[in-house]
Amino acid sequence: MAGSSFGKIFCVTTWGESHGSGIGVVVDGCPAGLLLDEKKIQKYLDRRKPGQSIYSTPRKEDDIVEIQSGVFEGMTTGTPISMAVYNKTQRSKDYSEIARVYRPGHADYTFDKKYGFRDYRGGGRSSGRETIGRVAAGAIACELLKELGIEVCAYTKSICGITIDEEMISKENIMKSPLYMPDLEASSKAEHKLLQMMKEKNSAGGIIECTVSGLPAGIGEPVFEKLDANLAKAVMSIGSVKGIEIGSGFEAAFSSGFNNNDGFYIDENSKVRKYTNNAGGILGGISDGSEIIIRAVVKPTPSIASSQKTINRDGENIDVEIKGRHDPVIVPRAVVVVEAMTAITVLDMLMMSMTSRLDLMKKFFNLVR
Amino acid sequence: MAGSSFGKIFCVTTWGESHGSGIGVVVDGCPAGLLLDEKKIQKYLDRRKPGQSIYSTPRKEDDIVEIQSGVFEGMTTGTPISMAVYNKTQRSKDYSEIARVYRPGHADYTFDKKYGFRDYRGGGRSSGRETIGRVAAGAIACELLKELGIEVCAYTKSICGITIDEEMISKENIMKSPLYMPDLEASSKAEHKLLQMMKEKNSAGGIIECTVSGLPAGIGEPVFEKLDANLAKAVMSIGSVKGIEIGSGFEAAFSSGFNNNDGFYIDENSKVRKYTNNAGGILGGISDGSEIIIRAVVKPTPSIASSQKTINRDGENIDVEIKGRHDPVIVPRAVVVVEAMTAITVLDMLMMSMTSRLDLMKKFFNLVR
Amino acid sequence: MAGSSFGKIFCVTTWGESHGSGIGVVVDGCPAGLLLDEKKIQKYLDRRKPGQSIYSTPRKEDDIVEIQSGVFEGMTTGTPISMAVYNKTQRSKDYSEIARVYRPGHADYTFDKKYGFRDYRGGGRSSGRETIGRVAAGAIACELLKELGIEVCAYTKSICGITIDEEMISKENIMKSPLYMPDLEASSKAEHKLLQMMKEKNSAGGIIECTVSGLPAGIGEPVFEKLDANLAKAVMSIGSVKGIEIGSGFEAAFSSGFNNNDGFYIDENSKVRKYTNNAGGILGGISDGSEIIIRAVVKPTPSIASSQKTINRDGENIDVEIKGRHDPVIVPRAVVVVEAMTAITVLDMLMMSMTSRLDLMKKFFNLVR
Amino acid sequence: MAGSSFGKIFCVTTWGESHGSGIGVVVDGCPAGLLLDEKKIQKYLDRRKPGQSIYSTPRKEDDIVEIQSGVFEGMTTGTPISMAVYNKTQRSKDYSEIARVYRPGHADYTFDKKYGFRDYRGGGRSSGRETIGRVAAGAIACELLKELGIEVCAYTKSICGITIDEEMISKENIMKSPLYMPDLEASSKAEHKLLQMMKEKNSAGGIIECTVSGLPAGIGEPVFEKLDANLAKAVMSIGSVKGIEIGSGFEAAFSSGFNNNDGFYIDENSKVRKYTNNAGGILGGISDGSEIIIRAVVKPTPSIASSQKTINRDGENIDVEIKGRHDPVIVPRAVVVVEAMTAITVLDMLMMSMTSRLDLMKKFFNLVR
Repeated sequence: MAGSSFGKIFCVTTWGESHGSGIGVVVDGCPAGLLLDEKKIQKYLDRRKPGQSIYSTPRKEDDIVEIQSGVFEGMTTGTPISMAVYNKTQRSKDYSEIARVYRPGHADYTFDKKYGFRDYRGGGRSSGRETIGRVAAGAIACELLKELGIEVCAYTKSICGITIDEEMISKENIMKSPLYMPDLEASSKAEHKLLQMMKEKNSAGGIIECTVSGLPAGIGEPVFEKLDANLAKAVMSIGSVKGIEIGSGFEAAFSSGFNNNDGFYIDENSKVRKYTNNAGGILGGISDGSEIIIRAVVKPTPSIASSQKTINRDGENIDVEIKGRHDPVIVPRAVVVVEAMTAITVLDMLMMSMTSRLDLMKKFFNLVR
Repeated sequence: MAGSSFGKIFCVTTWGESHGSGIGVVVDGCPAGLLLDEKKIQKYLDRRKPGQSIYSTPRKEDDIVEIQSGVFEGMTTGTPISMAVYNKTQRSKDYSEIARVYRPGHADYTFDKKYGFRDYRGGGRSSGRETIGRVAAGAIACELLKELGIEVCAYTKSICGITIDEEMISKENIMKSPLYMPDLEASSKAEHKLLQMMKEKNSAGGIIECTVSGLPAGIGEPVFEKLDANLAKAVMSIGSVKGIEIGSGFEAAFSSGFNNNDGFYIDENSKVRKYTNNAGGILGGISDGSEIIIRAVVKPTPSIASSQKTINRDGENIDVEIKGRHDPVIVPRAVVVVEAMTAITVLDMLMMSMTSRLDLMKKFFNLVR
Repeated sequence: MAGSSFGKIFCVTTWGESHGSGIGVVVDGCPAGLLLDEKKIQKYLDRRKPGQSIYSTPRKEDDIVEIQSGVFEGMTTGTPISMAVYNKTQRSKDYSEIARVYRPGHADYTFDKKYGFRDYRGGGRSSGRETIGRVAAGAIACELLKELGIEVCAYTKSICGITIDEEMISKENIMKSPLYMPDLEASSKAEHKLLQMMKEKNSAGGIIECTVSGLPAGIGEPVFEKLDANLAKAVMSIGSVKGIEIGSGFEAAFSSGFNNNDGFYIDENSKVRKYTNNAGGILGGISDGSEIIIRAVVKPTPSIASSQKTINRDGENIDVEIKGRHDPVIVPRAVVVVEAMTAITVLDMLMMSMTSRLDLMKKFFNLVR
Repeated sequence: MAGSSFGKIFCVTTWGESHGSGIGVVVDGCPAGLLLDEKKIQKYLDRRKPGQSIYSTPRKEDDIVEIQSGVFEGMTTGTPISMAVYNKTQRSKDYSEIARVYRPGHADYTFDKKYGFRDYRGGGRSSGRETIGRVAAGAIACELLKELGIEVCAYTKSICGITIDEEMISKENIMKSPLYMPDLEASSKAEHKLLQMMKEKNSAGGIIECTVSGLPAGIGEPVFEKLDANLAKAVMSIGSVKGIEIGSGFEAAFSSGFNNNDGFYIDENSKVRKYTNNAGGILGGISDGSEIIIRAVVKPTPSIASSQKTINRDGENIDVEIKGRHDPVIVPRAVVVVEAMTAITVLDMLMMSMTSRLDLMKKFFNLVR
């Protein structure tokens, strides 16, 4: 079944395989009137491209995006925006080994069971390169949200069990760390640990945190289309993410109602505020006007050079060592992917919320006539 | 926007407020030919109804389900199955207090911001009673999955930080504990702790685990409609759930690729197996044939009798003590809700998977002609 | 697969069989703040109920609607509105004949092929009674549209080939005719013809026209979600409708570009107008600000008392005479159903259109904050 | 709102503007295992490309399709198939005239009202070139249906009021006529009439008929997802189509129940047949095993060289003569578009039907395990 689209009103459809002609995305439902060009998109893509540091695969890919439709005279027209990153160099590698092996932690086996065979070149459709489409679409969502006064910001919370001090979080610090880890001391420790992991032909996992600020209260639908439910789906749909939590998240299991509840108060400017934000900005699936906080866990890169036990297509037990150099940790390059998926979700739900009240609908159509 | 439906092929739509005429659900897309009657559904509902133990609210509600359509001569017909639980006794309580207060940890404030006003009686649409519809629909999904050899099973993993020994998990033990906690020693400890919490006018949280066994490999769509992504949305859409993880989940942040990867092997019966199941049965968003394992964290009940700081509709800072007796922990009654949402999701994705391969489609339509 | 829901933002889900416990509908996505009670809905239902005239089946059904959720203190709350019409009298008829016969022009055979068996009582799910849910939902859509200055109006255009004079169309005249045929002379001729048909144990078809006035320009999405495409689906999904056209419709096949094009002009009040309206108010799938005009053809009632050749479940060639008294023409009772489906579609697309322009979205969220 | 996708399981998303970089489509949900290459797609595209005869615009466009993903070693992989037709020659025309004029019968005005401005080059997104994506996707649907024994076939039924003799319909004859009009005598008459129209700077409309043979009974969902309802939406979503009918269609308004009903019988091979096919192969929204017959009316090309009254963006009443040479009739090139949309719809609904019966689901999953 079709499963490469996300979003109901702002709808993103991705296509492409790792070593095919390229990776692309169609963004349908983008409002008309947003200033947009390739440069804006490219900035986001550059945050996920390989070869940014020694902690990511040194494969040389420029990942240059082209906008193919939906933009006219520098502005979105309201019609679908097709974007693509084409693979410049033909990758005529020898795939004979990978073609028949089921790598542990990868989707090789499950793709074969699902489809009968698979495009094994570089992981095919299950490769991390698929996220190029998400990031390009997320870039548009982020730019749109900014126009509406909403900011999405993701960063590395922890790698190899080394966790940042929350006080250090700032956009500036995030960009200073090769691991997008805003606590630079923690970052440096994690870098050390990663170098060691790399020597041991091993890999590491970590946690990404993402915040949304400026979101008005009232966004998200009760019941199944809760804001947190959609964020969970969005972020969990990123390869390698194995868990997600909102606000105090799994800590809530050990807390009490008295401690976990966030009391409301009216501040000196007559604004509604909360003493704490254990809810992560969402109550009953609907934004409460405070910061949205989500965290995702990213598993250690499954591609490691150590010898592992596994099987091949012929049903034989074998040992495999995965050749080539791979990211020793996926987390840093996944930061912008989490940001993208969060932005797409928040924008989509913001759009959904426009029909919640008849009085506001009346005012809207008075603007139109 | 419409947000009370879940599922693409097997689609569940719920309606109703806590203290309205009742709670209902329409299950659309159920295949014809399933033996079904109210008794089968009622069994599941009885696991979430209040008053089962001293650890749940003693409100007397029988929650008797009626099937109103879609079943003929004891069998599903393929058309929508409407089910409802009507409120027998009129609840003509005095709501004057709750009507104007924004209770901490509840959706009162966010509903007002979203809709301009709200049905405040008993929490209205944001009440836990809404899950009656989910459980009734989930009962059908569970029964259908059983016919296909698939079993879904949820239980309490931990309450107040007291966690079960995994060895003790069995359907029998689950039903023996008033907390649906299969390790009876742990259960008894948790019960003690809960009694203490209740005395302190406080409440507790916990973790629910759910497994799916018998699911064939190949279920789940790559990219956005991953099996884990949809499970995350499904379970996160349950009120009070603040996080979800698959397999090793958040532990993976501290693991390494070598330890986290699950090696494949061929067993003595020529079946594909894995040495470990850190992936929780899902690789690349697609089931790998081993057990699916998901965990959800449930926050402590927000309704507590202790005095809390908050505000009212008039924008005044006030103190509130929530009257009446409430569940000191939501976890036990939420166990069957997690089971229901998991079953609905797995069934829906199983149905989606039927068009993955042309050769199987050909065989299917040869059966039909 | 689930197929009993219609609409993306304003979403309608119906359930129920002709001779089951009742017929119902869940309306999800209705904005909060609409004054609503059963009386408003009942008015619409009364226009489709049987026994209104000698030209409809004399079965006595009051079809009294109950609102079960989504309305609080006389106002919609934004949550799902469940409505039901329960069957008062148990219909313990003898179905032995109809149970095994495949009536010509009915869905008996196709249901059996699809589902393996069927609820044969009174046509089960394929009965015209299913439209009760559509009309109840359509009533809400109509009332909402009125609040936004948009009026939907349907009437009988022709029966037995007798067609109205367009000059005679008025809300008043529509209600004066037992056939909802605003040209009373034509109505009277058609009534005569129908009486004759009834004597001959035969039945008649006809054409329903529906207009939408007050709809602003710019509603409808280009490409697949065109306003006319969705109207076509909506109206064609009504049982017995076998064709639909917009504006000049099938006449356009015989026209020329010069004659069929509607020239624009600026009127004395600086408003954009068109000299003609062959487009039926829709250009490129988007409303142009003039009246929307759609027409649907309704086939002659398939239930006739004359002897017809057909088969039974055992695969035998047989003759059948359909017992009981049936509507000699479906058209009059279907008028309000066409109105309902048109209103639901127009409202849903109106809601979709709210995100077309970034500048308007900005203004909207300035209203919210 | 997103509106460029069609289909629930087999889902087609198109992008691109007439004079932009190109036109493309993503086909998501195509089963794995279909032999596919560009040649197969190109055959269908060649039937809609301009310049095939003197009765279509002589613009030289080769419309060469590229497959960019979803096919590996000549076979579909089950992942999204991205296809594009890039515009080879830069169209640096002078658009100064068209940019500010609202052409009668075109979507210029409605796009401006919807989006605030538009890509006016060659009609932008509302151009007929958008159908390239539909035809490329439809080609895949047709090829898949063939594998399942189902054939879709469209042809011109009438142009300028000249209608074919049904006896003459054959795949061979269709391809012999430059108008895809299988009655070659009628075709020749219509060609004459068209030449005259062209001299008069005018244009013509017509009717396209499409049949589906080999479709098993039981396809289509009752209520809103009726097979005919979805066909109506699919075909009505093609630009210039202003009406659609199934089987006897609008004729049914003048018929009687006795004449319009199709009696069933068992033929000599014990197969279920019908004496007539006024239902066009669909009863209660579900296929009955006989041929599906649909007809669509196509309005006369709105682009004509005659002088027409209209307005411009500045709100001035003006006269316009549309420059360049345009198709004097859209019908012939739209034939393959109707075929494509029909195939996509039928395939999608075929897939939906696979979960109608539990017994068949059980058999299916026994095949899988």
